[in-house]
Amino acid sequence: MIEEEFKKQTELLREVYQALRPLRKVRLEDLEKALEQSKLLFIEGLKKPAFRFRREFRGFPAGTVIGPGLLMPGFPSIPRVFVLKTGIPRYIYGPFYAEEKIEGYNVRLANVFGEIKAFTRRGYVCPFATDRWPDFLPMLPEFFEKYPRYVICCEVAGPENPFVSEWPPYIKEDVAFFVFDIFDLERQKFLAPEKKYALLREYEFRTPEISGPYSPQEIDPLKGLILRYEEEGREGVVLKPVSFKDGRVIKYVTSSSNVSDLRVAFPYIGELDASYIVHRLVRMTITRWELDQPFDENFYQALGEAFFGEMKELLDKVAQGEPVEEVFKVRLRRKESLEALMAHFRTAQVRIEIRREEWKDEYLHVEFAKIYPKATSFWAGKLQGLAQID
Amino acid sequence: MIEEEFKKQTELLREVYQALRPLRKVRLEDLEKALEQSKLLFIEGLKKPAFRFRREFRGFPAGTVIGPGLLMPGFPSIPRVFVLKTGIPRYIYGPFYAEEKIEGYNVRLANVFGEIKAFTRRGYVCPFATDRWPDFLPMLPEFFEKYPRYVICCEVAGPENPFVSEWPPYIKEDVAFFVFDIFDLERQKFLAPEKKYALLREYEFRTPEISGPYSPQEIDPLKGLILRYEEEGREGVVLKPVSFKDGRVIKYVTSSSNVSDLRVAFPYIGELDASYIVHRLVRMTITRWELDQPFDENFYQALGEAFFGEMKELLDKVAQGEPVEEVFKVRLRRKESLEALMAHFRTAQVRIEIRREEWKDEYLHVEFAKIYPKATSFWAGKLQGLAQID
Repeated sequence: MIEEEFKKQTELLREVYQALRPLRKVRLEDLEKALEQSKLLFIEGLKKPAFRFRREFRGFPAGTVIGPGLLMPGFPSIPRVFVLKTGIPRYIYGPFYAEEKIEGYNVRLANVFGEIKAFTRRGYVCPFATDRWPDFLPMLPEFFEKYPRYVICCEVAGPENPFVSEWPPYIKEDVAFFVFDIFDLERQKFLAPEKKYALLREYEFRTPEISGPYSPQEIDPLKGLILRYEEEGREGVVLKPVSFKDGRVIKYVTSSSNVSDLRVAFPYIGELDASYIVHRLVRMTITRWELDQPFDENFYQALGEAFFGEMKELLDKVAQGEPVEEVFKVRLRRKESLEALMAHFRTAQVRIEIRREEWKDEYLHVEFAKIYPKATSFWAGKLQGLAQID
Repeated sequence: MIEEEFKKQTELLREVYQALRPLRKVRLEDLEKALEQSKLLFIEGLKKPAFRFRREFRGFPAGTVIGPGLLMPGFPSIPRVFVLKTGIPRYIYGPFYAEEKIEGYNVRLANVFGEIKAFTRRGYVCPFATDRWPDFLPMLPEFFEKYPRYVICCEVAGPENPFVSEWPPYIKEDVAFFVFDIFDLERQKFLAPEKKYALLREYEFRTPEISGPYSPQEIDPLKGLILRYEEEGREGVVLKPVSFKDGRVIKYVTSSSNVSDLRVAFPYIGELDASYIVHRLVRMTITRWELDQPFDENFYQALGEAFFGEMKELLDKVAQGEPVEEVFKVRLRRKESLEALMAHFRTAQVRIEIRREEWKDEYLHVEFAKIYPKATSFWAGKLQGLAQID
């Protein structure tokens, strides 16, 4: 960082430190050091100074956003169980709801210094969700007027989102915002399910499908739900105790969701850790075993197509010197949002090529490609005949 | 290591150092430090003191064995090419042979201080191959009489070997020794293919199938060979330039060999790195692409069966509290060899349970199980409902 800029940010950090009491459990000089080491990063473009933690730091989860009077923790990672019968009673001791797990990306919408902003899991301001929330959560301003210290946690999902190549099969175009949690900044706690459901109904926020309550001792109905989700190509469930005193939130995904992850991962394996692939193979093995789903030719066909269905085309392209890329589409309400999105990708060091830009029905329709240099050299090196020692 | 023992080994190391000139490129004190850090390990049971390098050390490859007048380098890792058309001309510039790559384990047989001993890739004395070579290489004593400074490099392969659960399909019982290289300790070099072939014929040593010579510019005949190996369930080829001046040795394996590796790896994934699985998926993708092998239901069926064919049974067992294990069979000529083999597994920290021991037709037939604690807890933890954060 340039000396000048660092000095300015350090001053702003001191300002935040003065104006955010819970931060004082850490010494200011430790935060300044974190800033210097890029563990703490300045967030551009807000009305007051704010910072995000890149990784967990002294009890602040990754993606935590801090500003004067603002402590918005990073959205927690939810533990995954592999087996329902043993996993549920291990973590949940009373009735629980099953909320559909939506394949998309997580944003936290908050009223930050007088503006409604969406933050990604890592604590970036998300230009896309910040642009589009009015289309999907029109009563959000009213909500924040009444509950200025609540945060709306939702999944942005659909075929036209800028980050994720999988989406719920019933979203046929554009995206939707699925609200699944409300966080109370004052008490630094999530709302319990039933209180949350009432508010989401009141403000007409779309939610993931909610089922239950179920009992940890009687999981056959939940198995039925998961088998239906498997059929419908839905991702899975997040299980939430009716009362947080009765256990903790856990998640579980379908076999087909694991299969479909492979389709969007294997071509880009050079960018990913190998365990991404293997974890999914392990999960589908155990799920199919527990739910008595057959290991048969239909399953093998689906798995094979997920791994290899697009590989011939990809290798043909790479052999001709083309890069590995993935094309995304989005609709935006404002041209500035596209600029902000591109700036976001630059900050995140993702290489983007815009392929199409067109105003239609008051939306800017944009098509862009993400270029994957590591995946490209992963495949290209091998196709060029380079040997490896293993 | 116990102080006393370490002192004794240090003295023996000094003795070796005095009696092995090429060792002097390293300072004695560095070797002593390597011994202290277990980078250099004493080899028990030979007539003179000897040591093995656990990993590459100052230019000595992993598995190198040193003793008075003995410098036997570890067997080199052979670079693997993924694409024949581009890979072969990149590394080989003249005519080359294709030697069948045998699925088994690599041993180096040498006349060490007057005894014929087999060494594993890591430089252990292999009790199994040391016991069994007379059955398969009866002319080996004559060979070493004439060529005391040559090392016979071979693959021990078959359904009854103590280390590897895959083998060439045409070996229906017991094992065979396939000699594929001769190393000259005097010149510290491998023999060129044709000189080697002549000697192997003369001493009636079984070899892998040898094809060629081929030209790097005309690889269709080699493709035909590989497609035949694919059909026959053989592993692949090691390509060796007729003259070492014309390039280097490279290897290439069939799609079906990669598929079959998954069958014997996936159940034990807790013991392996995830990249073991992913590398094989990558290799089969590129091979099938280059050789125009279809991505069709037969392939998907074979792949699915490799991954999951044995998983239901395995998970049922683990769910009942049984460990993940793999059963091996061997035939030995001497009871002491079994004791040495068990001592070898203890040194290598592999947990073994002997299941059956029976003398029949002058061989001790032994069946034993390897118990895999990491694979067991990998699956058992998940089946017991433990959650993971990823």
